[in-house]
Amino acid sequence: MCEANVYLLEDDGVKTLLLESVDRIIPQGENLYLENIFGERKTIKAQIAEMALVDHKIILKP
Amino acid sequence: MCEANVYLLEDDGVKTLLLESVDRIIPQGENLYLENIFGERKTIKAQIAEMALVDHKIILKP
Repeated sequence: MCEANVYLLEDDGVKTLLLESVDRIIPQGENLYLENIFGERKTIKAQIAEMALVDHKIILKP
Repeated sequence: MCEANVYLLEDDGVKTLLLESVDRIIPQGENLYLENIFGERKTIKAQIAEMALVDHKIILKP
């Protein structure tokens, strides 16, 4: 399957796994709505920093 | 492979294929840098409206 793992890039450069196997991402103003293939949902105040889909990786930043 | 096709949502609601098989997306200010698995690159002034990764679909809006 082609979902991606979403990480949050902290100020110290450390990437923390926020939600795995994310299928849907919908920007909502300053927030991002995340939904994964297990139906888990998160809304976080962050921006997309980079997406590398073949690597199943999406990096967010505060 | 898990790249996605990127579409631009026009004002009339029509979705136009902008670039297929996109692997990397990097927001650059008001622009989005797109790069696909064939090495083709595009930079466009647009925002992400919605991503549906399992469907290999990313919708942008002006």
